[in-house]
Amino acid sequence: MPFDAAEYAERLRDTKTRMEHYEVDVIVLTDPSNMCYLTGYDGWSFYVPQCLVVALDAEEPIWIGRGMDANAAKVTTRLSYENILPYADDYVQSTEKHALEFVAEIIAERGWGAKVVGIEADGYYLSPRGAGSLRAGLPDARITDITGLVNWVRSIKSLAEIAVMRQAARILEHVMEAGVEAVRPGVRQCDAAAAILKAATEGTPEFGGDYTAIVPMLPSGKGTSTPHLTWSDAVFNQGEATILELAGCRTRYHTPMARTVFLGDPPQKMLDVAQVVVEGLNNALEAVKPGVTCEQVEGVWRDTIAKHGIVKDSRIGYSIGLSYPPDWGERTMSLRPGDETEIHPNMTFHMIPGVWMDDWGIEISEPFLVTETGAEPFASFERGLLVR
Amino acid sequence: MPFDAAEYAERLRDTKTRMEHYEVDVIVLTDPSNMCYLTGYDGWSFYVPQCLVVALDAEEPIWIGRGMDANAAKVTTRLSYENILPYADDYVQSTEKHALEFVAEIIAERGWGAKVVGIEADGYYLSPRGAGSLRAGLPDARITDITGLVNWVRSIKSLAEIAVMRQAARILEHVMEAGVEAVRPGVRQCDAAAAILKAATEGTPEFGGDYTAIVPMLPSGKGTSTPHLTWSDAVFNQGEATILELAGCRTRYHTPMARTVFLGDPPQKMLDVAQVVVEGLNNALEAVKPGVTCEQVEGVWRDTIAKHGIVKDSRIGYSIGLSYPPDWGERTMSLRPGDETEIHPNMTFHMIPGVWMDDWGIEISEPFLVTETGAEPFASFERGLLVR
Repeated sequence: MPFDAAEYAERLRDTKTRMEHYEVDVIVLTDPSNMCYLTGYDGWSFYVPQCLVVALDAEEPIWIGRGMDANAAKVTTRLSYENILPYADDYVQSTEKHALEFVAEIIAERGWGAKVVGIEADGYYLSPRGAGSLRAGLPDARITDITGLVNWVRSIKSLAEIAVMRQAARILEHVMEAGVEAVRPGVRQCDAAAAILKAATEGTPEFGGDYTAIVPMLPSGKGTSTPHLTWSDAVFNQGEATILELAGCRTRYHTPMARTVFLGDPPQKMLDVAQVVVEGLNNALEAVKPGVTCEQVEGVWRDTIAKHGIVKDSRIGYSIGLSYPPDWGERTMSLRPGDETEIHPNMTFHMIPGVWMDDWGIEISEPFLVTETGAEPFASFERGLLVR
Repeated sequence: MPFDAAEYAERLRDTKTRMEHYEVDVIVLTDPSNMCYLTGYDGWSFYVPQCLVVALDAEEPIWIGRGMDANAAKVTTRLSYENILPYADDYVQSTEKHALEFVAEIIAERGWGAKVVGIEADGYYLSPRGAGSLRAGLPDARITDITGLVNWVRSIKSLAEIAVMRQAARILEHVMEAGVEAVRPGVRQCDAAAAILKAATEGTPEFGGDYTAIVPMLPSGKGTSTPHLTWSDAVFNQGEATILELAGCRTRYHTPMARTVFLGDPPQKMLDVAQVVVEGLNNALEAVKPGVTCEQVEGVWRDTIAKHGIVKDSRIGYSIGLSYPPDWGERTMSLRPGDETEIHPNMTFHMIPGVWMDDWGIEISEPFLVTETGAEPFASFERGLLVR
């Protein structure tokens, strides 16, 4: 397990403190990142219903999942076996019964049937039907939405987590180098993606890589007008740009980064915009300090690019850390107008001020740690449009 | 785009026929596999709300997603631009507003506010809060659950889809070879996973690989007692087994396969169980014919292993094809007791009769196509416990 028992105990304590604040007695966590954060549970089993039940009056969380995954809970967590509760296989993808009915039965059996029960109603991997089954099975409970409760506990990292993210950053540097190296005229996109995934997974000799919560994003040519395209077996062309949004991942902790590579002589407009993006990124990183708010940081970016006549209407960053597909963000803070969250030491962000035009775009980003004095980029990689 | 316009038109026609049968006027598809199936839309954007709205009285589906992803819809689909409707970025991960409110507004604007509207209430990527927002925004509509509607359309493949799955199988053979080759005493698991991901992504010289909807699963040693563990940087040990459940993926179509590798001399019990698994697998494959049911196929497996005193209480297979994370199954048919679905030509399955004991396990599986006469395995790879 990547962390010691004391660290998991502290995470659980902080979660329970927040539960008291939210005035909930029991929470049902279906986000695999939150399940892993509190217990270490790690398996690709989130394509079927599973959850962790945390109750204020129970010392240990309860893992509930599919029968064949119970051994994964035994192998990857310190939970006592009596708190690992498998459901029968005929719940899987059934139209007649739902695993959340089983979860409701367990909650009722433990005496929490008339309590306030929180669910992650806007997270991943709890379906509307699943929520309905839980509600129907607990007619006397008050079901309430606690989306983000554990995510907010996660927003400030421990020293052990920061150490792991620094390891992820070593992997990231290796990955980005492999990616930039692989983007060459005539090379198939899938071969570049193969080199990237190999680098991300082998990691470094000291630190093996884990799978990233998002696959390499690799829009090329006109595709750079949008950020979330993956790859095909088309080749890279001379005279075109390719965006690489990649990450290093170490025991589920991510440090992502984007760079834009141009093959040949970039048009002046692209050079100009890249320079503005770097200036805005640098200024916004400079503005990060404990005590400033997320929107203030974004405001510095916005003011910088406005001077150059550029407008961007999407957020420029988000909190990062432990994650599972489909997102390596933590879904708490965003660097954007209206987010008044105060920045604290040991928060970690991905600042990604992408600019997308009608048929081209630029992404240059940095993952960073908030220290007592400012933003410390996790990784070191040439910051600018990479011309090859 | 991987398929021609006529194929997409036929998929849409089949979907509308099924909508009539379900008595729904409009469906909101949030499963990225179904969005891609009907339009070709392909981007890693499903970590924020997005959907395809299909209405009986509209010729074309409507794509609704985040602003920055609208260009991805323009690049990857044939939809007319007036049916690509982006929402503003402040909907993203907001606690105050939800993108499904925007979806409801569009449905109302198009005059469908008092219709029967189907949602994928037990699929991926529609949250309970999202469903609630849709419901609140369409007070005069009747909201109904149509989970699986398009998945069932997908269950019988076209010849073009089968051709793509055969390409995926060529990639799979390359991947499995790389994986079995990489599992050696003293090699880090992450290095084997790196070799696997490289092979899966480069594919073959003719057919580039796409990302698989599930990452390589690689339980080793005691971890083979459970199927869904991924890798760490621990090394493989002499005298231990490793399960490889991998896939080839071609333009989002999957052919998965599992094999078990033993380093050294396997214990007799493992050799015995592997032999029974292969016998059961062979018999069950032999039993596949158009007209038999899913449960009849499983029954043949069950009878075979019962003779050897082995019991397995989980399903032995499922429908496969086009998919996005977190699952490469289609979530329609399962090879298990109670599934009375009749098997038809051009259905495609992954038959995976895994057996997991307290501290070890065996998986040997085959992806196959149903022909007019029986099961045709997609891939060719030594079927048995692989001793190295």
